[in-house]
Amino acid sequence: MSNQAQKTALVVSAHSADFVWRAGGAIAAHVKQGWKVKIICLSYGERGESAKLWRKPNMTLEQVKLVREREARAAAEILGGDIEFWDIRDYPMRIDEATLFRLVETYRQLQPEFVLSHSERDPYNFDHPLAMRAAQEARIIAQAEGHNPGETIIGAPSVYAFEPHQTEQCHWEPNTFLDISDVWDLKRQAIECMEGQEHLWDYYTRVALQRGVQAKRNIGITAKRAIQYAEGYMKLTPIVVHHL
Amino acid sequence: MSNQAQKTALVVSAHSADFVWRAGGAIAAHVKQGWKVKIICLSYGERGESAKLWRKPNMTLEQVKLVREREARAAAEILGGDIEFWDIRDYPMRIDEATLFRLVETYRQLQPEFVLSHSERDPYNFDHPLAMRAAQEARIIAQAEGHNPGETIIGAPSVYAFEPHQTEQCHWEPNTFLDISDVWDLKRQAIECMEGQEHLWDYYTRVALQRGVQAKRNIGITAKRAIQYAEGYMKLTPIVVHHL
Amino acid sequence: MSNQAQKTALVVSAHSADFVWRAGGAIAAHVKQGWKVKIICLSYGERGESAKLWRKPNMTLEQVKLVREREARAAAEILGGDIEFWDIRDYPMRIDEATLFRLVETYRQLQPEFVLSHSERDPYNFDHPLAMRAAQEARIIAQAEGHNPGETIIGAPSVYAFEPHQTEQCHWEPNTFLDISDVWDLKRQAIECMEGQEHLWDYYTRVALQRGVQAKRNIGITAKRAIQYAEGYMKLTPIVVHHL
Amino acid sequence: MSNQAQKTALVVSAHSADFVWRAGGAIAAHVKQGWKVKIICLSYGERGESAKLWRKPNMTLEQVKLVREREARAAAEILGGDIEFWDIRDYPMRIDEATLFRLVETYRQLQPEFVLSHSERDPYNFDHPLAMRAAQEARIIAQAEGHNPGETIIGAPSVYAFEPHQTEQCHWEPNTFLDISDVWDLKRQAIECMEGQEHLWDYYTRVALQRGVQAKRNIGITAKRAIQYAEGYMKLTPIVVHHL
Amino acid sequence: MSNQAQKTALVVSAHSADFVWRAGGAIAAHVKQGWKVKIICLSYGERGESAKLWRKPNMTLEQVKLVREREARAAAEILGGDIEFWDIRDYPMRIDEATLFRLVETYRQLQPEFVLSHSERDPYNFDHPLAMRAAQEARIIAQAEGHNPGETIIGAPSVYAFEPHQTEQCHWEPNTFLDISDVWDLKRQAIECMEGQEHLWDYYTRVALQRGVQAKRNIGITAKRAIQYAEGYMKLTPIVVHHL
Amino acid sequence: MSNQAQKTALVVSAHSADFVWRAGGAIAAHVKQGWKVKIICLSYGERGESAKLWRKPNMTLEQVKLVREREARAAAEILGGDIEFWDIRDYPMRIDEATLFRLVETYRQLQPEFVLSHSERDPYNFDHPLAMRAAQEARIIAQAEGHNPGETIIGAPSVYAFEPHQTEQCHWEPNTFLDISDVWDLKRQAIECMEGQEHLWDYYTRVALQRGVQAKRNIGITAKRAIQYAEGYMKLTPIVVHHL
Repeated sequence: MSNQAQKTALVVSAHSADFVWRAGGAIAAHVKQGWKVKIICLSYGERGESAKLWRKPNMTLEQVKLVREREARAAAEILGGDIEFWDIRDYPMRIDEATLFRLVETYRQLQPEFVLSHSERDPYNFDHPLAMRAAQEARIIAQAEGHNPGETIIGAPSVYAFEPHQTEQCHWEPNTFLDISDVWDLKRQAIECMEGQEHLWDYYTRVALQRGVQAKRNIGITAKRAIQYAEGYMKLTPIVVHHL
Repeated sequence: MSNQAQKTALVVSAHSADFVWRAGGAIAAHVKQGWKVKIICLSYGERGESAKLWRKPNMTLEQVKLVREREARAAAEILGGDIEFWDIRDYPMRIDEATLFRLVETYRQLQPEFVLSHSERDPYNFDHPLAMRAAQEARIIAQAEGHNPGETIIGAPSVYAFEPHQTEQCHWEPNTFLDISDVWDLKRQAIECMEGQEHLWDYYTRVALQRGVQAKRNIGITAKRAIQYAEGYMKLTPIVVHHL
Repeated sequence: MSNQAQKTALVVSAHSADFVWRAGGAIAAHVKQGWKVKIICLSYGERGESAKLWRKPNMTLEQVKLVREREARAAAEILGGDIEFWDIRDYPMRIDEATLFRLVETYRQLQPEFVLSHSERDPYNFDHPLAMRAAQEARIIAQAEGHNPGETIIGAPSVYAFEPHQTEQCHWEPNTFLDISDVWDLKRQAIECMEGQEHLWDYYTRVALQRGVQAKRNIGITAKRAIQYAEGYMKLTPIVVHHL
Repeated sequence: MSNQAQKTALVVSAHSADFVWRAGGAIAAHVKQGWKVKIICLSYGERGESAKLWRKPNMTLEQVKLVREREARAAAEILGGDIEFWDIRDYPMRIDEATLFRLVETYRQLQPEFVLSHSERDPYNFDHPLAMRAAQEARIIAQAEGHNPGETIIGAPSVYAFEPHQTEQCHWEPNTFLDISDVWDLKRQAIECMEGQEHLWDYYTRVALQRGVQAKRNIGITAKRAIQYAEGYMKLTPIVVHHL
Repeated sequence: MSNQAQKTALVVSAHSADFVWRAGGAIAAHVKQGWKVKIICLSYGERGESAKLWRKPNMTLEQVKLVREREARAAAEILGGDIEFWDIRDYPMRIDEATLFRLVETYRQLQPEFVLSHSERDPYNFDHPLAMRAAQEARIIAQAEGHNPGETIIGAPSVYAFEPHQTEQCHWEPNTFLDISDVWDLKRQAIECMEGQEHLWDYYTRVALQRGVQAKRNIGITAKRAIQYAEGYMKLTPIVVHHL
Repeated sequence: MSNQAQKTALVVSAHSADFVWRAGGAIAAHVKQGWKVKIICLSYGERGESAKLWRKPNMTLEQVKLVREREARAAAEILGGDIEFWDIRDYPMRIDEATLFRLVETYRQLQPEFVLSHSERDPYNFDHPLAMRAAQEARIIAQAEGHNPGETIIGAPSVYAFEPHQTEQCHWEPNTFLDISDVWDLKRQAIECMEGQEHLWDYYTRVALQRGVQAKRNIGITAKRAIQYAEGYMKLTPIVVHHL
């Protein structure tokens, strides 16, 4: 298979661990199916999502970032994704034009089939919806022929919101369940790279089991397919089909 | 191909012409792809959707029903669907238990992959959401092992709401576009069977063209696929997938 | 002015006092402008909205109804509306087909420009949304040529939800403010006919004052028109205009 | 403590096992705190939620009901609730006036501080929202002095929707977390009475753990209170307080 | 008629062609009725909505802007509107304070009866909601006596959202239909000035026909008024009236 | 009682009078119960909410600010709150990082039990939702150990939206009523300090009376507690409890 034919996907993660809990299964599953998956970590979550590290003595911002990068890199390697760290700061995150346009270029070079990012609303975390917003605005600009004319524009990659921490308050409603039973071991390994957030390991294992039960229910109890672990996604863009 | 292997779909139409305007393309497309599609017309729309007929002299309710059945039967034949008329009255429509259970039996005998019915809200037409509600409640009962134990229960057929007449007031939002370019001729022929509602022929031709343009946009202008006519659907049930 | 030319309006009130608090100003204002306004009281509110009467000794259901009818009739007379009592019971109210069709006939005979009824949601009162639902379903049936063929069908009278008791919980949002300053005295007089609910007199006087202030704000502080009292309405049907 | 002073609560459960999964912790916790909790099982879930039983040989409707009642009674005993079985049929459930008025009487005799029932929307289960609707309408009628005049009316008991199976699709959003760590053992024991639905035991154990983590987060990581298990509730009625 | 008495309206268009497709009929109709209509084109849509131009050889940004301005100016002339080009860039558009205050001044000088702009949500186009947001914020500032004290403040011009390209995904719901049958020829001529977007000519002709049919339906089939073409608007501000 | 034990609350007011109309009762009630309440006035409302002052001769921005500060300070003194004026400009208000971080520091030093600010939506006032947004984002940052490490982070103070001017258009729904009958006199005195907005004195007195009636209704007519004046709040954060 030539390189052009390889399908690609993009993950836009506000903080460097988000992609693991929320989309680790999708990354591993698509990589296993021959896809190239690129992960952009907009920040390290160094201020807002590294509480355990900050409780260690003599910790500095640089130190926290180093540990966070090491953990995320290890997780990405296990999942098979290509990871980049853009280090634009968190809590609060702000997206300037340079970051927006860099995201546009990423779309154009990658030409992804779909993009995964955060829910559009999250009262517990303002960085998350901002990352999704940037992912969507960059996608629209990457479709525009007048932006850097001459470059290859993108088509209309599907946009999915992965699962936030407290789904109901985020008005996030899963309309797509991805069966990740085959790659669960990889996801759990990746999860265990996040040493600074050990309290979340079992939480997201339970999330995967619950979504597995729900996925099973949504194909009907008469279906023979076994599903043990799943990830929920909220697809935001319409699908175009030849049969329903 | 054995009969068991043939995929099936169910259309629940409040009035005997609804299925033509709103789902004619889906019926023709799936039939063309080898599916069996069953159409249930809960009523003839004899009171509420036959204005032109009633303006003729000496018209009676039976007369109107006859004409409406003839038109719908002709349309179904063109599209390739199997049609049934349940004649439960319209304006207002009411669903009693006998009708509900008859719908349950239809699910069980047909074992459809999906069901198409009306939008869940329609301030212009109270029969439409009622038909969808019955389609959904019957689906749930058909899944229950305690209803007529011994019969084969159904799995979890997808539920789609087809397009209402004034979409925005119905809070109907298409998340699925079905390309019906290949079967448009059949849909137009079926539409033209509806002699009593000629004022809608061009209206729904324009709907198909608009949805075609939108479908094209949702696959991206770089896509090579040409789409001229489409139908929009609002999928109400989650999908379970192995890749996004 | 011939009788045909007189404009008409319909008010569908679940209980016999509702129309006073919520639409008394509209009734008086339109009557003053030469309209005929018909008020249908589906019930007397004899079980659910007559607490004070029930605390009197030796009270019976018939007694309560008599008092309620007397009060409502007095209020309607002050406002200038034509009132009917259909006595279909409240708490819980149920609408059978006879009532629905009677409402259809009322539409057809009256040919109203608009209809006023309750909010579509009210967690404090299940009779109210039911009355509105009947008002809407009857309106649709009255438009159908196949219902009692030969009768004159109606056009598309506007539908307005008048103000519920606790607006925000009812998701009722006023998009129309009616200036009732000129007829406020009549509304207050009508309110004072409701001897059994004296605790609401000042409540609804304050409502009228608040809506007056808001109406003023919505025409801008530069407008010269003085508005002291107003009623809020939520228009549910679109308007068709020749200029915006 | 005299009997009058004992606080009471009401649980309206569509099917005979619902109260266990969804409100078992609340029942046990309040009983432990000296409350009387009454559980109404509107049906046994004999048709729609007894799949495993129906797969046994020679099963009859009566047999299924007997087993379901035995299981639910055992669970209620462990939790300390008073249980009643009204046997009004499920799948589909319908609420007639006799049932509605019986519920009204239950409110009046019990005079509960709060009522727990299902979510107001559930696309997977039409019996659930119906049970909640009846719980709400009966509450309103029980407040009306004109219903069975002379009886003691009720105040304004809080209404809570307990957690549905697939929360997001039900638009159920928890605004109240109840710490059930102290009574978790009882809830798990009650859960294990449900022999026919063993596949749900671990599912609802995980639900309790997830809600526990979320409850902890919502009091802040600086709080000293440990919470391991919780139940989520959506409070539908406003609260009146002397301080925020 | 003195100049002061001439009524005025404001159109805030994100890109230089938007006003044609979406509000061309309103502009022409009001001009025909003696109004002055000012059109602000915040950008030329030079980057995001000029795909066809960019496919021509040796195209530059300045060239694209020139063509776009020429086309828009021609369209405005046909419609009779006064057009201004503010050239603030698109894809992404950003509104700085200078632009916001310039818009404030425009309101104050024009003193419009109403303002037309984009839908408040558009997942396909982030410039559109931003333009509407600026139109609304500027309106509020223009009402404030403390902004440039001494200038004449404005009243409360109505705010309308004109029709977006994919209405349902934008949660745009038309509550106002403007009959543009009398000026359709002018709108079509203006549309044909947009040479770079010829693929949209028929799309928006069909939009006008569909809205015409819907407008007709919303006045009722008994109405004698013929409506062939219409534009849909979502009015965001309440109306204050003397009769309903 | 030691200083540590004193409970605290924070009020974030976009303009210097907002806290009086909307939260004056809450401030007075909590101060009376021994709490310390800090009020942050982000601006004086000098441009947008001082119309009456601007109509005086020779008025300057500084003059307006002085009067507004004097009035707000007098009101805060009556209520017992500690007030700060941050003077960041209004109409339009913008929140830069310095202001955001200053708010973070305020949270950390105060360690409030709850925060009161504006509704999340207000089509009549864009400064209001912005102030609430800043209040929420600062709260989240103040919880982050990586922000100014070494400082004491905050827990999870409850967030309440106080009542906007036109509630329904703001989608503000009160789920919490605070009985302010005991402190009403203080609130009215504080209101009367706002000499520049005398037209609102009675408006907000009526608001308090209406909310009082509603609060009474929400505890039930059988409750003995008398409530004459209340304030409505929309609680945005979940509560964690040991009994319902």
